Parts: sequence; C-alpha cells; structure tokens
Amino acid sequence: MVTINDNYLKLKAGYLFPEIGRRVNAFAAANPDAPIIRLGIGDVTEPLPEACRTAMIKAVEDMGDRATFKGYGPEQGYSWLREAIATHDFQSRGCDISADEIFVSDGSKCDCGNILDIFGNNNTIAVTDPVYPVYVDTNVMAGHTGDANERGEYDGLVYLPISAENDFTAEIPSQKVDLIYLCFPNNPTGATATKEHLTDWVNYARAHGSIILFDAAYEAFITDPSLPHSIYEIEGARECAIEFRSFSKNAGFTGTRCALTVVPKSLKGKAADGSDVELWGLWNRRQSTKFNGVSYIVQRGAEAVYSPEGKAQTRALIDFYMENARIIREQLTNAGIQVHGGVNAPYVWVKTPHGLSSWDFFDKLLHTCNVVGTPGSGFGAAGEGYFRISAFNSRENVNKAMRRIVEKFKS
Amino acid sequence: MVTINDNYLKLKAGYLFPEIGRRVNAFAAANPDAPIIRLGIGDVTEPLPEACRTAMIKAVEDMGDRATFKGYGPEQGYSWLREAIATHDFQSRGCDISADEIFVSDGSKCDCGNILDIFGNNNTIAVTDPVYPVYVDTNVMAGHTGDANERGEYDGLVYLPISAENDFTAEIPSQKVDLIYLCFPNNPTGATATKEHLTDWVNYARAHGSIILFDAAYEAFITDPSLPHSIYEIEGARECAIEFRSFSKNAGFTGTRCALTVVPKSLKGKAADGSDVELWGLWNRRQSTKFNGVSYIVQRGAEAVYSPEGKAQTRALIDFYMENARIIREQLTNAGIQVHGGVNAPYVWVKTPHGLSSWDFFDKLLHTCNVVGTPGSGFGAAGEGYFRISAFNSRENVNKAMRRIVEKFKS
Repeated sequence: MVTINDNYLKLKAGYLFPEIGRRVNAFAAANPDAPIIRLGIGDVTEPLPEACRTAMIKAVEDMGDRATFKGYGPEQGYSWLREAIATHDFQSRGCDISADEIFVSDGSKCDCGNILDIFGNNNTIAVTDPVYPVYVDTNVMAGHTGDANERGEYDGLVYLPISAENDFTAEIPSQKVDLIYLCFPNNPTGATATKEHLTDWVNYARAHGSIILFDAAYEAFITDPSLPHSIYEIEGARECAIEFRSFSKNAGFTGTRCALTVVPKSLKGKAADGSDVELWGLWNRRQSTKFNGVSYIVQRGAEAVYSPEGKAQTRALIDFYMENARIIREQLTNAGIQVHGGVNAPYVWVKTPHGLSSWDFFDKLLHTCNVVGTPGSGFGAAGEGYFRISAFNSRENVNKAMRRIVEKFKS
Repeated sequence: MVTINDNYLKLKAGYLFPEIGRRVNAFAAANPDAPIIRLGIGDVTEPLPEACRTAMIKAVEDMGDRATFKGYGPEQGYSWLREAIATHDFQSRGCDISADEIFVSDGSKCDCGNILDIFGNNNTIAVTDPVYPVYVDTNVMAGHTGDANERGEYDGLVYLPISAENDFTAEIPSQKVDLIYLCFPNNPTGATATKEHLTDWVNYARAHGSIILFDAAYEAFITDPSLPHSIYEIEGARECAIEFRSFSKNAGFTGTRCALTVVPKSLKGKAADGSDVELWGLWNRRQSTKFNGVSYIVQRGAEAVYSPEGKAQTRALIDFYMENARIIREQLTNAGIQVHGGVNAPYVWVKTPHGLSSWDFFDKLLHTCNVVGTPGSGFGAAGEGYFRISAFNSRENVNKAMRRIVEKFKS
C-alpha cells in the first residue's frame, strides 16, 4: 500500500490561524449578534491602490486581443517586473542585486516553504522563538525535525528566544547552524534589526558557510531611517542570504497574490562530493519545474506599485495602517497594558495582563470585548504570555476595539 | 557549510521546454528574419473568453471598494468556485465528488509536483514512457530515483512504454507499484483511455493499495462521447485516485493561472506504524501551510467558465483548436508522414520521417521550415523517433506551417 509522509503526523493540532478561525467561528455561531472586530490575522482591509487596479484592468483587456494575449510567461516572472523590483527595491538602496536574481512568485509563504526543496536534509536549522509558524512547520513536513515536546518545541531545531528580556534581539548562536530564518521588521513581535545586528549575522553566516533566509515582508513599514530594509544593505550578504519580499502588506495584495524571492548568483552550498554548487541554478530549476509563473494580470498590478501614482498610493496605505498602530500602542498603554513593536511594523506585541496565558487572553478578549488577536504562544514557546495585535483594519474598527479594551482593562 | 539537495544534480541538462527555447532563440538570433511558427510548447494563443474577462474586470473593481475588497481567501479556493467545479465538471457526469474535495490552485504543474510532499519516500513509482517530464523530474528532485542511464531513464522508476506497437495503451504492470501517473487524453501522444482500460487500472490500484495520479488537463478536448472525462466515472476510483485539472487549455488560462486537484476523502495511505491516514487531511494541511490560495481576481475568471456564456465561449475555443488538429493530421498525412492522436486531444504525435531522431527532426523542421515542435525523446526514451505538434496556434499559422512541411516533405 502507498505510504504517507509520516513527518506530517508530528505537526501540532493545526496551523495557528485555522485554530483561531475555529474558535472565532464557534463564538460567532453562539453569539450571532456579537460585533466581532478581527485584529488577529495580519490581513489588510483597505482597497487596492488605484494604480494597481487600473493596470490590472488594462492587463485583462490585453488578454482579449490576440496581439496582446499572454500565454505561459517566464516561470521567474516578466523581465519588466523583475527590472522594476531590482531598481526600486534594491539598487535604489545601494544593494547590488540584478533583475535576474529576482524570482517573482505567488506568495512569500509558498517561497519560505519551497526554498527547503533545494537544500539537503542534514542541515542544522535555527529559528527565533516566537516565530512565523510556516518556517517551523515546513521543516517538520520536510523531515528536518524530531517530535515536538509539551512546549511545542521540535527536537532538532535550534530555537533562539526573543523577548523583552533580550530586547527582542536574538543572540548569535554559539553552535554552528546552517540555515537561519530571520524576519525583520519582525512578525510577530514588531521588533527591528539595526545594521549592526544584521552585520553580526552576516559575519556569523559567512564564517560558518550558513545561509540566512531573510523575510523582509514588512520592510515598507519601517519609519526609522537608520534601519536597513534589505539584508543586502549589509556588506557580504550576497554571499550568505536569500531574501523574501511580498506585495501583500505594502500594496494590499493578500488576496491578489504576488511576492518575490532574491537568490544572488554568488550563493553556494556544498554537494555530497564536497564541491560547491550555485544555489541560483537550483532554485531556477526548482521554479522552472514545479511552478508556472504568476498571472500576467497580477504581475502588471505589481509593476504599477512602482509607478509614481502607485508609490504615492502605497505610501498612503502604509501611513494609514501605521497610524492605526500608533493608536493601538497609545490606547493599550492607556489601559495599563505593556506594549512592544508597532513603530516600524504593523504589529503590536502585547504583554498579557494579570499573568494570563496567551490563549486565555485570546478567549477573554474575544468573549468580553469581541476583539480577535493572535496568541503569542501560537508563534512558539517563548511567545507564551504575549499577544499580537495587528494594525490591519479600518480606523473605525481600531478605535472601537481600543475603546472596548480600555473600558474593560483600565483599572 | 550548508548542504544542497544532491538529487538535483541527477537531473538531465535542462527541462525540455527551456532547452527548446534555447535552440529556437539561437536560431532566431542567427536568422532574425526567419518567420518562425511555434507549434512546440502546448501554449494557447487565442484571446481569453469574454465571460472570463468581464468577470475579472468586475473582480478588480471589487478590490477597489472596502466593502467588497478581498484579502486572504481560503487556501483551498473560494466555495463558489469549488461548488461550480464540483457541479459542472464532476456531478454532471455522475461522479460522486463534493466541493470540499476540490482544491483550487495556480497550476497543475505545481500540484503534480507538490502532491509528492504528502507521500512517503519509499513508494514504487510508475510512469508511462513517453511522459510529461514534470512527473519524472519532481520525483528525481524528491530523491525517489537513482541516476539516469544513457537513455535518460532513472533507476528506481517503473517505465510503462506506450507506442504505436501497443496502440499507446500502457500495459498494467505485473509488479506492485504504489503511485501511478496516468494522463488522458495523453500528453504527449494524444492517445485516450477507454472506460475499460481505466477500469483495469482502478482494479489494479485497489488490489494493491496504490494511488493513481490522474492528469485530466486535456479532458475538454475529448470528442468521442464514449470516453471518460474523469477517472471518477470509474467505479471505485474514489478509493484510489487523485485527479488534476486545469483551466489552462480549455479556457486559455496558461498566462492567467488556475487549476484544481481533487482529493477524495475516502483515499488512504499507510503510516509507518501501519495505521491508515486520510490523504485529504494531509493535502489540506500541505496547502494551508505552503500555499495561500489563488488570486481572487483569477478565481472569479475561472468561475465564469461555468456560466452559459463562458461555456459557449470555451466550447468555441476548443472547437477552434481541434479544427487546427484536424488540419495538421490531414496535411501531415498528405505529406506522407505518419500521425497519431489529434482526434480527442490537441496534440498530434508524429512518427519522424526517414528514421530521423527526434532532435534531428526538430532541428530540420526549425532550420528548413522554421516550424518549432517538441522532440518525442524529450518525453522519455520510448518517445525517440516521435515528435509532438501542438494544435495551439492561429489558423493562419497552422496553415502556413503545414504548407511549408508539405512542400518540404512531400516526395
């Protein structure tokens, strides 16, 4: 009989967000009139920039004429989009990244998981704790871990705790690790990395022949001009880092789907025979064989993000959400709740009051304020006692949610 | 130092279509005025149905209003699309498939590769020869094979030859295989499977606890009413088959990107402890963790394929390409070239004349007729001496290409 991938059986009861969905649906079914406000999942709520919509309508019209119709596009993305990304996101910040090192995809979540395809199964893998669950779960599925303990930590992974105690800065490991996931601005804590901190990581990676998987999905939310937006702003990163970016959060593409991964041609990994192999070629082969490119229509929408109108409209979207973040920080502080993040990131990382566990605070907030957030423990053991509140919602909903929380918690 | 997935090094020099692209580009660069006609890659050329374009423009407009804006959708696809697929593609043909067994994706190529994630690494895998290269290459990448021999056959795979000698019908294997890839109407040979033939496969799979991976990407091109469109038309297939479908070829979505995979809840695989595990749950978990759904805009376009206008326009597209196939068959026969397929499939499978090898015929056709086709040997060792010509092009180009071939080859 056909056998299954047993590693799937090691996964914990459900990916975090489906579990939240289950609890919210159960509450909503029992309380059909409850005016639930969702500040849980990091999903945008405001309309897509007009520049993107105009470009996509034009692209749909292109599909109606034989002369401009587009069939299969390059698996790596159209060159006009890759060029725009290289110019505006990287070269404009002094990063030495060329268009052919950019792979357009339908999502960073997909790429973060798929990237493991090109690596060996014997690498030591480090993640921060708390961490975006996809990094961990995809490694479990790939058989890179043992079982989880009662705290939800998987045997074989190296966890780097980040919490208020170390100012949300992961310590450079003393042992050797081969693959390191870093996400800055951080999901879920909203923490950032300075150039100095990233330089330490790059130096570590180069010394050990490690690869940093750098998730920059939230770079557009950086307000502090001294902070790096890309790991390639750090000297030497071309030798040790893959970067993931997304149009989901800056331009509101969560339901439109476009992202990108940067694989510099200078990256190398070791083959079993000891020879060095270029990672770019492996990823290019992976994408050519297991992916067929992003919808032409969507790529045209993404391209428009870099037009003058698109840039202004995207900037306005980000400013809007960051004002939400400011309000959340201010009001929660006002309610006597301790907050972190939310200054260079759309996430506010809350210390649960009265020593409540993360899920207890989740249930309390849902039942008494009808507000949905994300339990910190869902992001890892060291997230216990924390709670993530997302700035992605309307101003009205954010104000309402904060009023309810202040009323309930202000002692 | 980080290690790579050494299995990638077993892959042959390049995925078939990039290699064709390389040769065509080199020829075009050397002969910039050559009026090249591409009947190689199976890519559509005619405009997207109006019903789909209208629905997508409406969907883009939805994205411009907060009230109708869509963020993250269900990873499995929107229920309105899954319902439409279940009703029109399956239940209407008597297949007992429900909407929640349908997973909408951005491509069958992706799904065919990704499906391996949920299976164990110790399964015996069977493919036909010739075969769509993605089935083989993704198994090589996953480490399910040894090295390739000089004929391009990978150690560890079970090859089931299909050629004119067995009327392009793979013999049911005498040994036990766990995963079997079947594609009907067949890419590349254009052959079809009768209900009786598929019943033999289903009976084999049920007797051995095997899973059939059934690629029905070309089902819309079936003209013979006695032929099954879905494997679920066969009694017992819910117990042993996963089916892949695509909007690429019927509705011209190769550049728009939408497909689907059917995983019945009754499918099971064996865990290491001997217990039975539902494959649906594994695939659902895989998609929830490593995929974020198809663009809302594209899903609305796919939904429109099932509207009365969409059905009529899609039918017209298929009829158009099938008339091309008829012309190709007729003209090649006229030129004294032996042809197969092209009656229930958009591919004509040509026996290369004068005993030419597949790649020699490719080069000859490119250089003397400026026509691009696909070498049969690129689909597997048993494809040597054959050549695939695709019906996906304008009538004018098909007529021109056939005129050139008839002139050149008619002795």
